[in-house]
Order: sequence, then structure tokens, then C-alpha cells
Amino acid sequence: MAAAHYLALTGGVGGAKLALGLSRLLEPDQLRFVVNTGDDFDHLGLHISPDIDTLIYTLAGLCNTETGWGRANESWQFMTALSQLNGEDWFRLGDRDLAMHIERTRRLAAGMDLTHVIRELAGALGVRHPILPMTDDPVRTTVDTAQGELAFQHYFVRDRCAPAVTGVRFVGAEQARLSPSLSEALRDPALAGVIVCPSNPYLSIDPILAVPPLRAALTNLQVPVVAVSPIVAGAAIKGPTAKMMRELDIPNTAVEIARYYRSWIDGFILDEADRALKDEVQALGLATVVTRTVMVSLEDRVALAREALQLIDQPS
Amino acid sequence: MAAAHYLALTGGVGGAKLALGLSRLLEPDQLRFVVNTGDDFDHLGLHISPDIDTLIYTLAGLCNTETGWGRANESWQFMTALSQLNGEDWFRLGDRDLAMHIERTRRLAAGMDLTHVIRELAGALGVRHPILPMTDDPVRTTVDTAQGELAFQHYFVRDRCAPAVTGVRFVGAEQARLSPSLSEALRDPALAGVIVCPSNPYLSIDPILAVPPLRAALTNLQVPVVAVSPIVAGAAIKGPTAKMMRELDIPNTAVEIARYYRSWIDGFILDEADRALKDEVQALGLATVVTRTVMVSLEDRVALAREALQLIDQPS
Repeated sequence: MAAAHYLALTGGVGGAKLALGLSRLLEPDQLRFVVNTGDDFDHLGLHISPDIDTLIYTLAGLCNTETGWGRANESWQFMTALSQLNGEDWFRLGDRDLAMHIERTRRLAAGMDLTHVIRELAGALGVRHPILPMTDDPVRTTVDTAQGELAFQHYFVRDRCAPAVTGVRFVGAEQARLSPSLSEALRDPALAGVIVCPSNPYLSIDPILAVPPLRAALTNLQVPVVAVSPIVAGAAIKGPTAKMMRELDIPNTAVEIARYYRSWIDGFILDEADRALKDEVQALGLATVVTRTVMVSLEDRVALAREALQLIDQPS
Repeated sequence: MAAAHYLALTGGVGGAKLALGLSRLLEPDQLRFVVNTGDDFDHLGLHISPDIDTLIYTLAGLCNTETGWGRANESWQFMTALSQLNGEDWFRLGDRDLAMHIERTRRLAAGMDLTHVIRELAGALGVRHPILPMTDDPVRTTVDTAQGELAFQHYFVRDRCAPAVTGVRFVGAEQARLSPSLSEALRDPALAGVIVCPSNPYLSIDPILAVPPLRAALTNLQVPVVAVSPIVAGAAIKGPTAKMMRELDIPNTAVEIARYYRSWIDGFILDEADRALKDEVQALGLATVVTRTVMVSLEDRVALAREALQLIDQPS
């Protein structure tokens, strides 16, 4: 009999932390990652996949833990030279990181789909757990703000999330298809559960759900789906989640995240700091666990991963 | 009255040395460079223009004098990371140099022609003398060898000029047009002469002449054209000129270069080491000067440039 197999949905830095913990508990044939590509964009003629790269670098042990993005021991000669040439320098591309973007772009241009490109590039860096883009088709997260429509990276990086968000759209999602690899993962009879990593619900998880066949599959699963709250004590560990919730007139509490996900999840993990919210989350019909969700060390990542897997295996 | 104005035809490293010397004697409104683009190629999705970049970096004082190509104080983190990703790593792209290729590619993809792209990029690095690609249209030097047809950079860099050359073709040259800037330069009534820098006749100067309107203009000029021999004592200072001559059954002497050029040049500069050949070159009907052509120092470059300009102004 095949080993139980899990899917983890993830976006940026916070999600990648739990992903690393999961990868220490589950073998490559037991765990697949489904990653947001709504943040992908074309920049300087290169196809950039920020969330996928964050996960690859994290799993490969190459992540820059100071910045939270890009590669460790990075150098910036390219950026310096680019600025000298009056190139667009608001998106920082390290010298080593650039190899990933150039090789991805080259392979895509040669006709390879993103799933296969990522398999090759991640594999070259020693990553053995499958990293599956949510789709091979282009989906581009677009943020409506008080200053007008902004492509995601313009909002997130160039404008440092400063503009007030009035809405988020995933351009192309309606037409996006499941990749064969992802389709196969979702239909795997050994699938035992899904973990929703603590990523931004509106910017990292929503684009995944915006792909119609993926949404249909995830919301009709016969196995438990558990989510880890990306909000702790009303704040996000990283990124604009809490700020966006205020701008979208959603109370910035973990309960609201649980409420947002409740139609398709079965379990929810709250941080110790939000212990007082447990009853409220349970009242939504969700199996609820309170634990330490703030991941500082590798041990924190593994411990939280273990809690998530336990919640799947015993969903109360 | 407008100042006398000169054109210098140039290819790679040897040509760029004399180009630098000329740039120290003539103001930006007195000297324009016409550069071989037959060496250009698409690599890793980037448009690489080796001869143009060699000239830009040389004039900007950024040239890597150790390698003869690329930028000084270069780092190679990108190449290391590219190799790790199993990317094609036979063509070395430095971290700083990469900015040039990415910006050129981006601007070309945005619809700008190569002449304007080069004007902007060279200008950003402080180069004030106009650097004109021989055409904005694609011309690709293709080398026929004992092992079959090779794209130029595959012959030159990947295979280190090892295959024996049986012929050279300039694919696309027949359809290539003059850029407006180059057309204007050739028709300038102040044009006083043309210098053919000591570049490889078969690989750097021939592609320039292979562009039909440029060949027509250069071979019908009413002003002196003088060439500096790229062959000294039967050898090339750099590159495969002498080796190619042997393979093409051309005696590898400076006289043969003069003979090769004689239909469209008026004067020829021989190195001191080839003093014995002076009569033979003069017998071809060329005003001939013997001087030191081996350029080690900046003073050498300027001195040779002065000789070339004197030969133009007093063509015997």
C-alpha cells in the first residue's frame, strides 16, 4: 500500500517556514506542495516566480533568512550595474538568484511548462519534494487600490504595500487549467489530507482557489483540510495581511481567517496568543488546536508541522 | 564650418585598442565608430553584442584588460549559480556585464532599434563618441568548418577556434539595411576619412562590408580609407586571424591583408616588424606607413591613432 500522501498549499515566506517543517516529517513521495503563482510577473524580460523560488530556496537550505526572500550569501553586482544603465531597479535581483530567473525564462521560451521547469530547477538544487505551481497557465494577481489598479509586485515591492487595498483580482484564473501533475496529486487515492500554510489568504491562498478546477477539487475533498492561522494576536508575522484586512473592513483576527476558510476546511490551528478565540473558532464547526505557531527555529517549524499532521489524522 | 569627421570600422579587442586611441585625439562630434554585429547572438534568451560591448567598455574605461573582454572588477556569482542549475555555461557572463545584456534585450523587445539602445547604454556609462552598429537588422556570422557549420560564438568561444575554417558567411547580411544614423554619417559632407582598425578581416571587417548599402558607400567614398594591419610578422596579436588564413590557404602576411583590402582602401599601416614588406604593399598602389602597431600602453594606442589620421590627411 502506498504511503499516506499530503498536499500543502503555500505562498510566500510564512508558508515556506511550515513547508520546511513538513518536509522534515514527510518523505518526498508523501508530500507535495501547491504554490501560488499569482505573484509571478515578467520583469526585465524575465519570468519571476517569487513564491516558488522562496519555497525552492527554503527547502534547498539556500534561503536568505535575513531578507526572507532571495538567496543566502547573495551579491548585488548586477543590480549596481543595472542602476548605472538606468534600468528598473526597484525589484532587487541578486547575482545568484538571477540564474534561476534566466534559466526559468529560457526553458519556458523553449516550450517547457512551468511545472517541468520547476521540477528541473528545484531538482538541480537538491529539492526532492514535488513543488507544483497552482497552474501552468498565466494568472496575475492585480490589486485594486485607492491609487488605481496595480500589478501585484508593483503593489507589494515597488510601493511597499502602502496603497490602501479595495480589492484583489486574479487575472487569467478563470481560464487557468490544472497541470497533469497537480490533477494526479488531487486524485491520488493515498491522499490523506491538505495543509493550508500560514500564508496571506487574500494574496497567496485565494489565487490558488481562483483556479476553477483546483477550487472544485479542494472544496470537494473527502479528506481533512487544516489551516494554520497567518494572523496572531491581530497581526501578521510578515506581510500585509492584517493591514489589508483593515482596509477591506474585515476585523483583523484569526477568527475571521477561520470564517473566511470555513466552507472548505475542517480544522484550524490558532496561536497560543489567541487561545481566547478557540471557542469562537470551534463554533464555526472547525476542529481547533491551540499551539505555538510563531516559527523562529527549525524545531518550531517541525513542531507546528507535526501539530498540523496530527490534526489531519485526528480531526476531533 | 563643421569639424572634420572620421569613421572607424572596428570589431573586437584589437580594434577597440585603436578606437580608444582615436577617441583621445578626436572629439565626439569628429569620430563615429561603425561596429561589427555579425558576432551578435542570442544566448540564454539574451541579445549579446560582443564587439559593441568590448568597444563600450573600452571607451568607458571599464574594460577587463586581463581577459580582453567583459568588465573590469567582474564577479561570477551568476555563472556559478547557472552551472548549479545545469544551465549552458560555456559563454561566461559576469554579474555586472549581465546588466548590459538584460537591458539591451529588454529595450530591443520593447521595440527600440539597436542603434538607439546602444546610444542609451553607452551614454549611461559615459561614452560620448557615437557607436553605430553596422546595421540594426540581424546578421549572424556563420563559420563553415571541417566539422560542419557553426554559429560564430560556438566556433569562437565554445570551440575555441579549434575547428579548421573552410568558409565564412554572414547570414542575413544581404537583407540588412543601413540605420538612419549610419546613413547620415556616411553622407556627412565633413567626412574626412575612414580608419579600418586592426580587426580580423574575415570575421570583423567582412561582415561590415557584407551589408550591401554599407559596402556600396565604403567602396565609393571620395575620402581616404586607411587600414592598420591586424597581422604582425605573420601572427595576429590576438584571435584566430593567422590560423584562419592558413586554413583558407592565404599566406599569413600583412601583405595579404593589404591585398585583400586594396580595392577599397587607400593607405595601409604596417608594423615595424614587417618593414621589409613595405615595397610590396606600396606596389599594390597603397600609401604605406611603417610604425609600431603593437599597442601595449595607452600612449601606443594614441600614437597609432595619430599615424592613421596623418595618413588620411596626407595620403602620400
